[in-house]
This record gives sequence, structure tokens and C-alpha cells, in this order.
Amino acid sequence: MGERKSQESCKIVIIGLGTGGLYSSRAATRFDRKAEITIVERRDYDMFSPCGLPYAIEGMVESFEDLKHSVPSTRQLKKLLRHEALSIDAEGKRVQVENLESGETSWLDYDSLIISTGSQPTILPIPGAKELLGRGVYVVTNPENAEELRDVALESKRAVVVGGGAIGLEIAFALKELGLEVWVTKRSPPPFPRNLDPDMGKIISEYLDAKGLHILFGKGIDAINGGDRVESVVIEGETIHTNIVVMAVGVRPESFLAEEAGIATERGAVLVNERMETSVKNVYAIGDCARSFSGVDGEPSYVALATTAFKQATVAGVNAAGGDAIYGGNLGTFVSFIGDLEISCTGYNSEAAERNGFKVVTGRANMKIKPSWMPGAKDISVKLVVDAETGRILGGQAIGEEGAAWRMNVVALAIKQKVMIQEFSTIELAYCPAVSEVYDPLLVAADTAIRRLSRTR
Amino acid sequence: MGERKSQESCKIVIIGLGTGGLYSSRAATRFDRKAEITIVERRDYDMFSPCGLPYAIEGMVESFEDLKHSVPSTRQLKKLLRHEALSIDAEGKRVQVENLESGETSWLDYDSLIISTGSQPTILPIPGAKELLGRGVYVVTNPENAEELRDVALESKRAVVVGGGAIGLEIAFALKELGLEVWVTKRSPPPFPRNLDPDMGKIISEYLDAKGLHILFGKGIDAINGGDRVESVVIEGETIHTNIVVMAVGVRPESFLAEEAGIATERGAVLVNERMETSVKNVYAIGDCARSFSGVDGEPSYVALATTAFKQATVAGVNAAGGDAIYGGNLGTFVSFIGDLEISCTGYNSEAAERNGFKVVTGRANMKIKPSWMPGAKDISVKLVVDAETGRILGGQAIGEEGAAWRMNVVALAIKQKVMIQEFSTIELAYCPAVSEVYDPLLVAADTAIRRLSRTR
Repeated sequence: MGERKSQESCKIVIIGLGTGGLYSSRAATRFDRKAEITIVERRDYDMFSPCGLPYAIEGMVESFEDLKHSVPSTRQLKKLLRHEALSIDAEGKRVQVENLESGETSWLDYDSLIISTGSQPTILPIPGAKELLGRGVYVVTNPENAEELRDVALESKRAVVVGGGAIGLEIAFALKELGLEVWVTKRSPPPFPRNLDPDMGKIISEYLDAKGLHILFGKGIDAINGGDRVESVVIEGETIHTNIVVMAVGVRPESFLAEEAGIATERGAVLVNERMETSVKNVYAIGDCARSFSGVDGEPSYVALATTAFKQATVAGVNAAGGDAIYGGNLGTFVSFIGDLEISCTGYNSEAAERNGFKVVTGRANMKIKPSWMPGAKDISVKLVVDAETGRILGGQAIGEEGAAWRMNVVALAIKQKVMIQEFSTIELAYCPAVSEVYDPLLVAADTAIRRLSRTR
Repeated sequence: MGERKSQESCKIVIIGLGTGGLYSSRAATRFDRKAEITIVERRDYDMFSPCGLPYAIEGMVESFEDLKHSVPSTRQLKKLLRHEALSIDAEGKRVQVENLESGETSWLDYDSLIISTGSQPTILPIPGAKELLGRGVYVVTNPENAEELRDVALESKRAVVVGGGAIGLEIAFALKELGLEVWVTKRSPPPFPRNLDPDMGKIISEYLDAKGLHILFGKGIDAINGGDRVESVVIEGETIHTNIVVMAVGVRPESFLAEEAGIATERGAVLVNERMETSVKNVYAIGDCARSFSGVDGEPSYVALATTAFKQATVAGVNAAGGDAIYGGNLGTFVSFIGDLEISCTGYNSEAAERNGFKVVTGRANMKIKPSWMPGAKDISVKLVVDAETGRILGGQAIGEEGAAWRMNVVALAIKQKVMIQEFSTIELAYCPAVSEVYDPLLVAADTAIRRLSRTR
């Protein structure tokens, strides 16, 4: 920021008002109370909570309006709603924006620019998918399309969900709860293949199967048929009649603006360093549109989670305002809540760890989270992934009716602090039979890994 | 163990079959499959879960029998139930035991001895307390006296509980749930004074008050009156008619055997080093009878919790079997569940930190644990205690309807690993609106502490 005249305040432009946009503006304001921040956003309302959409489809959250939140304007924070960023002039340090109401364009000068444009849902390149989008084929990315899906679902009997990640399975379960017969299909066999080991994923497949969903994991969808609207799908040669297909097969980074401005990208995502800087000076990128690196070993890593956007935003916001914050990398810590199952993980699963060159030892525990004599003692499965060479914890996975996420949060801190499994197993956890076990599943999993570790040496 | 002839197996005697006895025997067996272990225990049954007693009094746990567990004998593990250890001959490496059935005494040789004798409840030195013990004055230390209390409570209308720690408040709430009018009295004003800061303790006082308990914190009990049985108590001059007084004012270590054998004690507890060794060679002490040291700063520290006994047992068991394990110190990580409140803490509270020479900065957050638009979003208060000089996390406290314990477990790992608050605040936590918030109360508390920290510098 040394180029600025000291009496002028730092001008920060943020493209996109999602988790990344919000928290980077807050971090910038906190670092420099005088920073002048402008957020450019296409929508005509401020924010919404994407992760809440499946629960609103299910009806657990009463109204889609509940998912919308306002971000108060202040003297230092200006929101340009219904505005679209058209191009970035990196040389001139300005962004061209269009007022979507009036069609007028103008330029916004910046000292620092934060690109937080998020991602777009992937549409599988199969016959019928693009053609019938909005007419039976749905993506769930905002309150509007989620509400449309709910409205149609309430008058439908069957639905096919394509995708076996968190969003797909949460929506599949929501549709089931609305009374529909639901098929879930994905080409690769295990659910959450990037996050869970197959033995852990199996718990989910079996659970959904027991709940009456048709689980077609390992069977890809070939085509979507219909005239005006979707009428059926073909899955490995078999036709299933349905008027709803939900496409939840992942996202692609929204990096067009950055690419056009000559900012470096890789596999479609804006490359950033540990200060969340792009290849162009004074331009930062965060969240779903950015490719950062793993908090386990620093390898390039793309994670599209609100958690990641949030942590990256706190770094980019400080740096954009003239500070010097460092991002420690992403762990992909996540939790999904499907029916009664809390599914959580952090760091590498076995396959990812091996792909990144680690030799892996694991420890798994399947237990009650409280003493069995306490009423309501629920089951949990916890798995830890450990580097066989050093004993360092590389990842964790947990599935249970409660307490999965927080066990993984402890593991997330352990990974971040590079804690060895032997050290980890001596952590002093809180015990009360109404809440926990003396010898927690997390420690049982750790001790199992330690014993296997000593045998591999 | 070098003194033993190599063909002979290691003989370990453990006095007391509680959490410490059980887990030290397991650790020893795991370290040396051939170790011959003898556990000496006064009771005529194996184990029970003391922390479950309040929930059995309340009726949440169906039967007091549910709290009793058997520990299978094996070729390597011998249990001597209904046996009492009478004396330790440290010179001769043997323990004299009495068969409580037959009155016979005999000597048990050991290579290693583990003293895990636990503690006895403190009886306040006030008129009537000792005299009426068992006749209206109750302590809750085992299934037998807990069941006696429940039986009397079911035919009573009023009870006075003396003590404001976990056991006292859990029992007070249990008696309230049984329909009794309940008074809780303790001389010092805040509840959990060793664990919680007064502002956090206030949440509990107010909760119990709202639930209809008579909270007389700061008012000590002067006398217990009665003839055959308790008839009333006097609290600061005021007489309250009751036929039940529960004494839950803490414990004193059961260290008589060790003292008699010339083993060093301090304030009644057996002194141990980081290998859980006492002042006498080959003799270890663990759990409520031992005084170890704080995991925060190594200062001498006495903690009477199952968690502590468990962790110390895993160290003593390995060392007794010829290994070399190190104890990292206690943090007093605990959780208590009272009504709807989960109360948890770890490490030092502000007062303890200051008493140990730290200058303290705190951060506190009072929030919902999920987004407010999710149904069932519950409140939590989280407080972190931080060293103002270095930013190191020294302790944490949390009170809420759920999730208090696991947030404190994360803090426990942070304390153990000597994590600075700035580093801690960058932890990547799992988010899903059905389970958590993007910006968790734990991180809000951390950021609050960080801001105060920067102002104090």
C-alpha cells in the first residue's frame, strides 16, 4: 500500500457477496477502520446460506426467505447489488461493472481487489441434461432454484439425484422426507470418495438403503429423456420414470473474469499463494474460485467449502487492507447431516494420502459415544489416517448420530499443529456419562493406529 | 526391571479397582503380555461408574446395577475382591492383604506396585454432620449409598445439598427432578470456583434458580440438627426443615497406606513424578490418591477426575511393566451435565492462571451454536483464558445445551500443544447449518481475546 498517498484511505473492491466476500470485508475493516470497501454482487439481495438449501427443501427450515441475510451498509462498506463485474483492468487497477437494472457501465478504482466469485454447478455432458435444465433437471445453488425444486417435488412422486457428495445426499434425503421415491446415482462406487475411505462410505450407503432410498452408486446416468419436461432417465440401460433430476455432481470455479485479465489459473481455478495473492499484484482470490494448497503437506488443493472461503477471507481481507496475514492451507474439514447421520472428515483420506506419497496406517473405532448404560447412547465410527513413517496424523473421518464434527475438529487442530499420533493419544478429554465415554472412540481409534504403526516398523 | 530374572514374568500388584486400577492393568498387559497382575479390591463386585450415580438417582439410568461392570479375570489378571491392603513393605517389595471374608492375612510380592486407592468424601466439621451420617446425612460415592439416598428421597419432600461442584449440582438437580424442594448451599459465592470464572458460573446459578432450586451460594451451613434422624439444618442463622442433607463438598485422597510405608505425600496426596513414580522405587500412584502437576505449566496440581485417573493409569501401567511412558500433566478437563446444561472447562480459569503468575486476557462469546434460522439452534457461552505476555492459551470454559465439552476438548489439545491464540484462531472447523456455524463461538471467543491482547501490548 506504500504507493497510496497516506492521507487517502485504502480502496478495496470485492467481487461477490458470499461467505468469502462478507468475511474478507469484515477482516479488512477490522484491520483498517478507514478502508473503503465496495462489494459488487449480481443478486438483488445481500447474502444467503447455500448450505441451508437442502434443509429448506426438506421443510426443516420453514421458508427460503429465512436463508437470506442482509449485510448492513456502513460509511466504509458500500454494496453494489444488481451489478456485474465485466472486466478487470489490472494495469489500471480498476474493475468495470455493469448496473444490471440500467445497463450502464462504469469503472471502480481499487488499491486491492478481492475476487470471490464462487463457482457454478457442473452439468454432466449427457444427452438431455443441458436441454432440459429448468424443465425437470435442477441444480440447487440458490434459494430460487431450490424453491422451484421443492415446489415441483411437492407435486411429484419420484426423483433421481445425480451425485454422491454432501449436497446430493442431503437433497436426496430431503426429497425422500417429502414423500418421494428417490434414486441416487453416481459413476464411482463409494460416497464422498474424496473425503471418506470406502469402509466408512459404506456406512452411509447402507444407512440410505435402510431408509428406503435406491442407491445406485457405481452406476452412471446415460441420458435424460423428455419432450417439454423430463420424463425419464436411463441408468446403465435401465429406464426410470421420473419428472425430477437433480444434478449435484460438483462445481467448476467461476474464474472467467480473472482469466480474461491474464491472472494465472490452473484447472479453471485462480492460483493463489499463502497470502491469497493471485499472479497479479494487489489482486486476491478466495473461496470456490481459487485454488490454494493443502494444510497437510502444502500440495496444490482445491476445496469448495464455506469453511475454506471463510478462513481464506480473513487472510485476504487483512492483506488487502495492507496487513500481512498467512493462510495455512485447507484441510477440507467438513460436516454433512443426512437424516440422523452426522458425517465429518478433515485432512486426507487414505487414498489422497497415498496419492500424495504417504505410506498410510489407519485406526478405526466403532463404539457408543456414551456408556451403554446411559439412555440414548448413540453409535459412532471414527477413523484416523496416519503417516506410517513418522506417526503424523494426516486425516480423520467420523460418522455417527452426533459428535462426529467436533471429533474431527480436534483432529483438524492436530493436523494443523503437526501432532504425532502418540502425542495425540494422550489428550485429556472431558468425561461425563451423560455426554461422553472415559475412553473416547477418538482415542480408541488413535491407539489402534499406534499399535498398527509399531507393527509396521 | 533389570533385577528380575529374565525367565520370570513381571509381577504387578494394583491396589484399588477403579478407573485407575482398570486402565493401568490394561496398559501393563498391553505392554507386556506376560505380566502377572493382581488387583486388590475391598468391594465384592468388580467396578462401578461413580460419575453415573447422579443420573441413577434421577432415574435416567434405570437401575443402580447398570452402573456395575465386571472385569474379566484372565490368566494374567487376578482379582482379589473382598480383600483389603493392610500395609506396604517397600523394602521387601510386598503388600499385606486381608481376606475380608475369612479375616486371613497374607503377603503379595510385587516387582511393581500401583496405588490406586482413590479418595474419600469430605465431611464438613459442623455439628451433626458426622453424628447423623447415614441417618439423613448422605454422601454419594457408590451404588449402595446412592441408592439409599434415592430410596429416602422418593419418600421425602425436601433436601439440602451442600456443595456447588459437579457432583453436588448434578445430585441437587436429580432430587429436584424427583419432585423434592431443593436447597443448595456453599460457603464461597460462585459455582465451580476452581474451574469457572464468576461470570460463567453465574449462568449456572441463574439456570438452577430459574428451574426452581433454592440457590444459597455464599451462605455456609452451620449445623445439622436431629435426634434419630436429620430434622433440619441451619444456614446463616436460618433453619430449614429437611430430612435429607447431601454432603458433596469434595474429597480427600486415600493415602494412608502410602504414608504408613514412608512414601512422600503433600497435603494428603501421594506425590508422583512424570512417570507416575512415588518417592519409593517401583511404587506408582495414580488417580484421586495422587498429586501430580499441571499440564499448563508443570505446577503441582491435584485433580480428582476419572479422566485424570485414566490418563495417569496408561502411563503407570506401561512403566510398571518395564516401559518408559511420560505423563504430560493434568488439565482438569471436565464436563458436567445438569438439566439441559453441558458445563465444561479445561486448563486454568482466570483466577488460577493469575495465582500461577500469568497476566491474563480473556475472550468470551455468547451465541447460538447453529445459524438462528435452523430449528433447535441452542445457546452457548464460550470463554478462553490467554496469557497476555505470549498469547498462549491457558484455559477454556463453555456452558451450553450441547457442544460445550467438545469445544473444550479442542482447547485441551491446544493447551497441551502450547498453541498461541493467533494460531488457534485459524483452525478450520467443520460447518453445516444442521450442526454448526461458519464462524463458531470458539473462534469468536478467540478473536475477542486477540483484539484485547493487541490492546494490552
